[in-house]
Amino acid sequence: MAQKKMILDLDTGIDDAMAIAYAVASPEVDLIGIIGSYGNVYVEDGAINSLKILELLGVTDVPVYVGLSHSSESDHFDRMPISAQIHGENGIGEVELPEPTRPVETGDAIDFLIDSVKQYGKDLILVPTGPLTNLDAAIKKDPSITKEIGNVTIMGGALTVPGNVTNVTEANIQQDAAAANRVFISPLHLTMVGLDVTLRTLLTKKETQQWRDLGTKSGEAFADIVDYYIKAYEVTSPDLHGCALHDPFAVGVAINPDFVQCLDLNMYVTTDDKYYGRTIGDPARLSEPETNVKVAVNANVDAYLKEFMSRLGGLFKQN
Amino acid sequence: MAQKKMILDLDTGIDDAMAIAYAVASPEVDLIGIIGSYGNVYVEDGAINSLKILELLGVTDVPVYVGLSHSSESDHFDRMPISAQIHGENGIGEVELPEPTRPVETGDAIDFLIDSVKQYGKDLILVPTGPLTNLDAAIKKDPSITKEIGNVTIMGGALTVPGNVTNVTEANIQQDAAAANRVFISPLHLTMVGLDVTLRTLLTKKETQQWRDLGTKSGEAFADIVDYYIKAYEVTSPDLHGCALHDPFAVGVAINPDFVQCLDLNMYVTTDDKYYGRTIGDPARLSEPETNVKVAVNANVDAYLKEFMSRLGGLFKQN
Repeated sequence: MAQKKMILDLDTGIDDAMAIAYAVASPEVDLIGIIGSYGNVYVEDGAINSLKILELLGVTDVPVYVGLSHSSESDHFDRMPISAQIHGENGIGEVELPEPTRPVETGDAIDFLIDSVKQYGKDLILVPTGPLTNLDAAIKKDPSITKEIGNVTIMGGALTVPGNVTNVTEANIQQDAAAANRVFISPLHLTMVGLDVTLRTLLTKKETQQWRDLGTKSGEAFADIVDYYIKAYEVTSPDLHGCALHDPFAVGVAINPDFVQCLDLNMYVTTDDKYYGRTIGDPARLSEPETNVKVAVNANVDAYLKEFMSRLGGLFKQN
Repeated sequence: MAQKKMILDLDTGIDDAMAIAYAVASPEVDLIGIIGSYGNVYVEDGAINSLKILELLGVTDVPVYVGLSHSSESDHFDRMPISAQIHGENGIGEVELPEPTRPVETGDAIDFLIDSVKQYGKDLILVPTGPLTNLDAAIKKDPSITKEIGNVTIMGGALTVPGNVTNVTEANIQQDAAAANRVFISPLHLTMVGLDVTLRTLLTKKETQQWRDLGTKSGEAFADIVDYYIKAYEVTSPDLHGCALHDPFAVGVAINPDFVQCLDLNMYVTTDDKYYGRTIGDPARLSEPETNVKVAVNANVDAYLKEFMSRLGGLFKQN
């Protein structure tokens, strides 16, 4: 199998940190860049966190770009207090990692994405795990990329389960529902890995203890970071008995679609006040034979969790 | 194949009338009774409509019971003006049919349902195409029926598409969301044929003209009745270019599940003011290995429509 190129679009964030680790640990893909977004953290902090996590994992050759700092419908972004509660003030569970030696890129994040599509086309996998603001901006700047990019797998949305911000709205979509709507109704083919499946992929302190037991710098740091997340989940979602692997599951599905079963559906995102940010089937395109969204509606949880632990464990052992 | 017994629970209604015709025309099932519900019409009017439609189709041996007249949470039911707009003041498109010779049954509708489950068990198919008030009452009176009944296929709800009353709510569920919730979270196994698929099954005046051309009483009456419905759809849903076969599709799926592809999901119905009547996955039971609801999320529309026209045409030809 030829190695694919991968770009992550992250608001790093604890589960984003695990998404980076999964991508780095996966031989099927070559991580060629990370684009920063706002959401769990401010965009600048997320970019720095991405660099810190990469260096913790022994990776210094992956460029990190600073993407757009706020939604397409506003002129600034205010971090929600709940984000600090879940991810820590610094976004990575209050764990102090060394300042990165590599700086963030000075080039334009949107141009980097477009140029990468032009260079790699069908061999490029894009995984946005935050708001879809950067992807929307890239499509606006060069609509032709919707037909050229190989694989877009997003973490976001909720179709068959309630949202986590409102009853109908998932957090990433809620950050910029207008951008998400433009992406969903564009010709782009995308896979939606939403709360439908990510709430089924749970990690507990049993698993983080295995990382801690490795006795390595990265194993111990990731155990501390993710334990913070698990502790936050005990408060916000006591029913779950663990933390959801939102972002790393999207990376897993992008690499191996067999981890999920999908429903083919043409969708839109509602942007009216009352149901803001709902990802739902588009009645006007319900009977069209062609569909552009694959919604993950069921997951092979055990298979994924086994792969997740194997890949991250192997990576942490070496660093 | 042994013939199954079928009970319809209807608020008759134009698409309910087509559901009766589909059941009568189906050799796989023996229609042993109809329970009346409120919704499209008042319960008494719906029961009379059911009898009129049965007699139009040459059927006089099917008892029609008057079910509960209002939701489990109210003491009366007010018909919505939109219902008269869609189904006509009389519920069957202002078409005047002879008064039925058979009276409605004087026995209790809920007892009839429970007794039928006891008598036929796994050989009984129940198709409620209105509010779930009667089924909920039967389960309340005798919870054991949830394990004994063979097949419950409801027309109601919307999982992957917007509702038709509010953005999140389908009309049948909205009539009595509390009852629907109790049914969904009960041990009952049910198939949900909701707007997800019924909005894809469209009938046009081209098809009703075929009935009219038969020159029979039932063919002409059904053409007039359904043309009223199609005309109403031109106003309420101009995008669809036809009318949806909500209720007869549920009967079709109850008889032949191959008409749809289903998603297995544990669901509940939200009853709070803001999202009243939303049929959605239950987060607390998301990872349970056993599921009790099969949600139809995709439909073999052409195959169903062909069968629908063949069965109803054959029936109308004889009456």
